[in-house]
Amino acid sequence: MPHIALPEGLPGMSAGLDFRPETAKPLGELAQILMQGPSTLTRGERELIATYVSSQNDCYFCQSSHGAIAAACLNDDGELAEQDTEALVIQVKQDFQHAGISETLKALLVIAGQVQEGGKHVTARAVDNARQCGATDLEIHDTVLIAALFCLCNRYVDGLATWQPHDDEMYRQRGQRVAREGYINASKKYLPQETTV
Amino acid sequence: MPHIALPEGLPGMSAGLDFRPETAKPLGELAQILMQGPSTLTRGERELIATYVSSQNDCYFCQSSHGAIAAACLNDDGELAEQDTEALVIQVKQDFQHAGISETLKALLVIAGQVQEGGKHVTARAVDNARQCGATDLEIHDTVLIAALFCLCNRYVDGLATWQPHDDEMYRQRGQRVAREGYINASKKYLPQETTV
Repeated sequence: MPHIALPEGLPGMSAGLDFRPETAKPLGELAQILMQGPSTLTRGERELIATYVSSQNDCYFCQSSHGAIAAACLNDDGELAEQDTEALVIQVKQDFQHAGISETLKALLVIAGQVQEGGKHVTARAVDNARQCGATDLEIHDTVLIAALFCLCNRYVDGLATWQPHDDEMYRQRGQRVAREGYINASKKYLPQETTV
Repeated sequence: MPHIALPEGLPGMSAGLDFRPETAKPLGELAQILMQGPSTLTRGERELIATYVSSQNDCYFCQSSHGAIAAACLNDDGELAEQDTEALVIQVKQDFQHAGISETLKALLVIAGQVQEGGKHVTARAVDNARQCGATDLEIHDTVLIAALFCLCNRYVDGLATWQPHDDEMYRQRGQRVAREGYINASKKYLPQETTV
């Protein structure tokens, strides 16, 4: 049961956002810009960073929803065949060093994992390695901020004890919607039965 | 030395914000609404929550800057005589259960400390206790979100290895400016020499 009287029927993050629309607006804008705005990191890569951090924070809702967005983005952007993307997401969460992703993304995931532990855990060595793999300063910056943002989101979702259904198809549908409509447009339309409206 | 080529002369958070104005805008708006927007929690109380979380995360810049904003807000809002506010901030960081703050704020700081450890650490017992002390659902929500936001900010500031000068007077001046002008208006005017412009 949620710790406070959240709106019923809205899972995870969407419950907190619906409860407090004033703070939902800048949070949605931040996610939209950082996760789907112009970047040399693909949307799929950014979502994999978010998914990995959420997995390290053991947040079921965020790792499921952003894993599904990652899979949908990787499909939509033609980076991988549909068949492979969900398996790739699982592989990244479990052991990204052996996943079928670029060496640059692996190096950025190392930094993201350090941010998840705490800001002071980020090492010059990890940053140097990312740079040697071709990462730019902006990509390193965005990796740190994405990881930090999901340390916020994971705590928001679990700290309120939100409803987090175990329903793969719901996350899959939501992932496709966020990939195609963006974070802000897809908000407040979470439930599966609403996807046909 | 910062991990990436941040603008020189800007300490802590302001360096990251200046480096990436696109993400700085919603982050500034979120801080403005959550920390200084309409609320039954005073600005000083909200800043004490931010300061405590930043202290638990061992982020020198954030605990210094938000401690100074807390002190300035407590003075401006007439909650405490100027003499006492800086000592109160230190007491809250070190042992808030014995600080001169309300029982409600103490109960909210317990929740904030749990959020800092991780979202799943928040207990129904701590939330019940806050409610028995008079906290509303909105106050509990905002406490969780403030604590989560500072888990972001602390990681952003330390994860980029920003410049964090040990200069009490700089933080004091900045704190007074943010208390009087708000987060967004006070941004990009960090350095002491600029305070006279």
